[in-house]
Amino acid sequence: MPTRSLEELAEYVGGRICGDPNVVIKSASTLGRAREGDISFLVNRKYQKQLRTTKASAVIVGKETADSSVPLLIAEDPYYAFMQIMVLLHGHRKHKKVGISQRASISDSAKVGADCHIHDFAVIADDARIGDGCVIYSGVYIGHGVQIGNDSIIYPNTTIYDGCRLGNRVIINANTTIGEDGFGYATYEGVHHKIPQIGGVIIEDDVEVGACCGIERGTLGDTVIGQGSKLGDLVTIGHGTKIGQYCLLVAQVGIAGSTTLGHHCVVGGQVGIVGHINIGHNVTIAAQAGVVNNIEDGQIVLGAPAIEANQGRRAYSMIQYLPEMRQSIRSLQNQIDQITTSPEEPDSEDLSEHNHEP
Amino acid sequence: MPTRSLEELAEYVGGRICGDPNVVIKSASTLGRAREGDISFLVNRKYQKQLRTTKASAVIVGKETADSSVPLLIAEDPYYAFMQIMVLLHGHRKHKKVGISQRASISDSAKVGADCHIHDFAVIADDARIGDGCVIYSGVYIGHGVQIGNDSIIYPNTTIYDGCRLGNRVIINANTTIGEDGFGYATYEGVHHKIPQIGGVIIEDDVEVGACCGIERGTLGDTVIGQGSKLGDLVTIGHGTKIGQYCLLVAQVGIAGSTTLGHHCVVGGQVGIVGHINIGHNVTIAAQAGVVNNIEDGQIVLGAPAIEANQGRRAYSMIQYLPEMRQSIRSLQNQIDQITTSPEEPDSEDLSEHNHEP
Amino acid sequence: MPTRSLEELAEYVGGRICGDPNVVIKSASTLGRAREGDISFLVNRKYQKQLRTTKASAVIVGKETADSSVPLLIAEDPYYAFMQIMVLLHGHRKHKKVGISQRASISDSAKVGADCHIHDFAVIADDARIGDGCVIYSGVYIGHGVQIGNDSIIYPNTTIYDGCRLGNRVIINANTTIGEDGFGYATYEGVHHKIPQIGGVIIEDDVEVGACCGIERGTLGDTVIGQGSKLGDLVTIGHGTKIGQYCLLVAQVGIAGSTTLGHHCVVGGQVGIVGHINIGHNVTIAAQAGVVNNIEDGQIVLGAPAIEANQGRRAYSMIQYLPEMRQSIRSLQNQIDQITTSPEEPDSEDLSEHNHEP
Repeated sequence: MPTRSLEELAEYVGGRICGDPNVVIKSASTLGRAREGDISFLVNRKYQKQLRTTKASAVIVGKETADSSVPLLIAEDPYYAFMQIMVLLHGHRKHKKVGISQRASISDSAKVGADCHIHDFAVIADDARIGDGCVIYSGVYIGHGVQIGNDSIIYPNTTIYDGCRLGNRVIINANTTIGEDGFGYATYEGVHHKIPQIGGVIIEDDVEVGACCGIERGTLGDTVIGQGSKLGDLVTIGHGTKIGQYCLLVAQVGIAGSTTLGHHCVVGGQVGIVGHINIGHNVTIAAQAGVVNNIEDGQIVLGAPAIEANQGRRAYSMIQYLPEMRQSIRSLQNQIDQITTSPEEPDSEDLSEHNHEP
Repeated sequence: MPTRSLEELAEYVGGRICGDPNVVIKSASTLGRAREGDISFLVNRKYQKQLRTTKASAVIVGKETADSSVPLLIAEDPYYAFMQIMVLLHGHRKHKKVGISQRASISDSAKVGADCHIHDFAVIADDARIGDGCVIYSGVYIGHGVQIGNDSIIYPNTTIYDGCRLGNRVIINANTTIGEDGFGYATYEGVHHKIPQIGGVIIEDDVEVGACCGIERGTLGDTVIGQGSKLGDLVTIGHGTKIGQYCLLVAQVGIAGSTTLGHHCVVGGQVGIVGHINIGHNVTIAAQAGVVNNIEDGQIVLGAPAIEANQGRRAYSMIQYLPEMRQSIRSLQNQIDQITTSPEEPDSEDLSEHNHEP
Repeated sequence: MPTRSLEELAEYVGGRICGDPNVVIKSASTLGRAREGDISFLVNRKYQKQLRTTKASAVIVGKETADSSVPLLIAEDPYYAFMQIMVLLHGHRKHKKVGISQRASISDSAKVGADCHIHDFAVIADDARIGDGCVIYSGVYIGHGVQIGNDSIIYPNTTIYDGCRLGNRVIINANTTIGEDGFGYATYEGVHHKIPQIGGVIIEDDVEVGACCGIERGTLGDTVIGQGSKLGDLVTIGHGTKIGQYCLLVAQVGIAGSTTLGHHCVVGGQVGIVGHINIGHNVTIAAQAGVVNNIEDGQIVLGAPAIEANQGRRAYSMIQYLPEMRQSIRSLQNQIDQITTSPEEPDSEDLSEHNHEP
């Protein structure tokens, strides 16, 4: 593994150094686990204290601090600098150059580009077209007429149904399903009749999809995952839904059909979004929210039902006070009853409509 | 692809036409995306406006409207008519007739019916029995003694554990697991001891199961998915739970063990249902609800904890007013304190236990 | 199948008998489904009534009751006794002794221990090390350098990415993914850049993982599932998260990255836990809870946001009273307005801005 001086790394990411520029960096690690030769990073303030105790040889930070026992690499965007250094020191996963396995099943009518690596027991069905430089792992099923661009990676046991189209540099993690039929049935006299799902799925360039996801094909139009969007594990996207560019969908998100998300949306874990609504651009939806209405550009929402975040944070955190509030309301009523019966009208018979003990 | 006149389609679905009966229909599309030769449909009022702008050659609707620029096919149940026309024009997925692949692994003791298509790298273990006309895709694992009826389709990489029984015309989508052991452990002195799960899974006729689902086998009795029920993606059903006939379980539903659902229940996305309870017939459970108690026939519930829907819609939508309500309660207390100390008892010193500014 | 007398079973589990010790037991079943020769058990009081109607030949109970029509086996921990008897009578799943299939793909540099059974179309990549007595089912992918201990079982179509380490007696159910990249991106100028994930996954001894789970590898350190912990179906664990020993994570739990759980935690179905927090030992988290803060040892929490359970049960169950509470607050305000305007100022015209009937 190549080593770098802290100075070289600072130059590479356009940062500056506070401390010895000659320390040698071999690897990256967390503040808590780092040893000599490791570079670490500090983004989350929770870990600030560890700057004093870390055994790292250097730490990437956003701004100078006297609170450190080790050399600092100060970068404008420390997390981005950390990413750059991770790629420089470690690189992305290397894929074994297996070529086209004799134990893969590739249709004569399928076209596979140059420099592809198709592992044992992968299946590429009729009329599929795979671009150059793709890696198709074992157990992957590429259905009839599927198109995949260049430099895409499909991890083991992923299933891509007929006619789906994936772009360039797409990564699909293991055991994910793309293009299964949308959940579409017409119920007539109590029986659910399956509606043919003739739309497809389009996964644009630079998308990564997590493990065990399900992305339904559209009923009529296509389901679309926009360029550069990233989906976590166990995410499911309904038929005909369109995710804009550069969205982040964290694990276990579920979005029903025919909904549209704009670009640069961030959707927290376990969020549910109903069908047939519009989510604007740059929208942030907190984990576990339940979204049932359109959301305008730039909004931040939370809760189920989802409401504006500042209001929502206060509102949902007050649920714990409900017993106390209900008690207060009863107490107030009692106090009022006392006021209206005894002090103001000392001589009156019981004229009040409320029950009270005098 | 065959074309039909609008008149033919109207006759086929038992509807009537408002406009030119001779327009030629080749395909189906959404109101927004349709082009000449497409038929579209209007069910959701949200899209009503598009009747004026659609490029479709005809639209299926539930009732006549003057608001359309195109011929209308008026059907009693327009969504059902749309389904019928989709099947007529497009049909369901055609499966390549691959026969029994030499690259599949089929036990000598397994029985495979007539006109089955078993793809490369599918596995059919000892004593399994597959009916006629089934399609078993690549990477599917059919365990020991599994029974599957006629005309069922198992999509790639699905795993069916030993002894499960599937009926006729069952569809299991990709990467789904059926019959894994139920989550059953006896904890003794802090150690979780696995309980053998000797029940099975029964999937009745005409069930469709989505992608990446997990349907546990029962501990003692069977887990049952009733006839004609449809499960979305990433649904999980606990050990020994029984889903009645013609239920719809939307994506990411989770039902714990030993629970019973009646027939014709609709369970929204991400709903959670605890174990050992009874859900009646024709029950509707809104998305993300958390069900912890029995539900009677015909009820509609929502929320977590789930309550009756009309009450629930009002109640859960009021969470946003909690800060305001809490503030009001404080204000009321202050007002009462003022009443009880100043006007009625103008001469008194501060006898109240509450703080207040006179 | 071997039969046992009730006396033998009582001796085996250290219990005592109330009734005929000579009844012959062949199998186990539920109270409701049991027939002659079956033993059943009663743990959940809900089923107490069935003691009178069951057709079982004996029932395991925690304490004597006159309310039974059948012989009882009284055990200190009836569920544990039931587990022991299930293992005795039925045993755990028997795996066919297939040896090393010629149709599996095993790298020359991989090491497979004694008495392993590797099924057709399983893949074991370079430098992987499998201990003795393991069963690797069809379609399983064992990545480069993966290590698995002795007597572990990997069910069909599971994918284990490069470098993950599994202990002894580990069970991974079907279609699960272990070691996919963590959801880690550095967003710079609106583009999400993938961060190499150089940590691994460690699954300690005696862990069972359900079907269709996703356990991410760590960004820098390892993701750890502690000894004896059990995960249900469709669970996802974020990068670098550490689950302690003997935890139970029910189906569809999602835990984000860099969080720590202590030992003996119980996490209910569909719970979501944010990243970078600490959950203590012996913590219980009720189903569907949303955990956003650290939790101390021994706490029981529920709700979203999660709060202490006793308080939470009362608080969340009061959401249904919100409309009534809001109405009460309005009514109180009206009453106070009446008090402050009419009784004290009997001669005034209606100066109040509120409507009221005098």
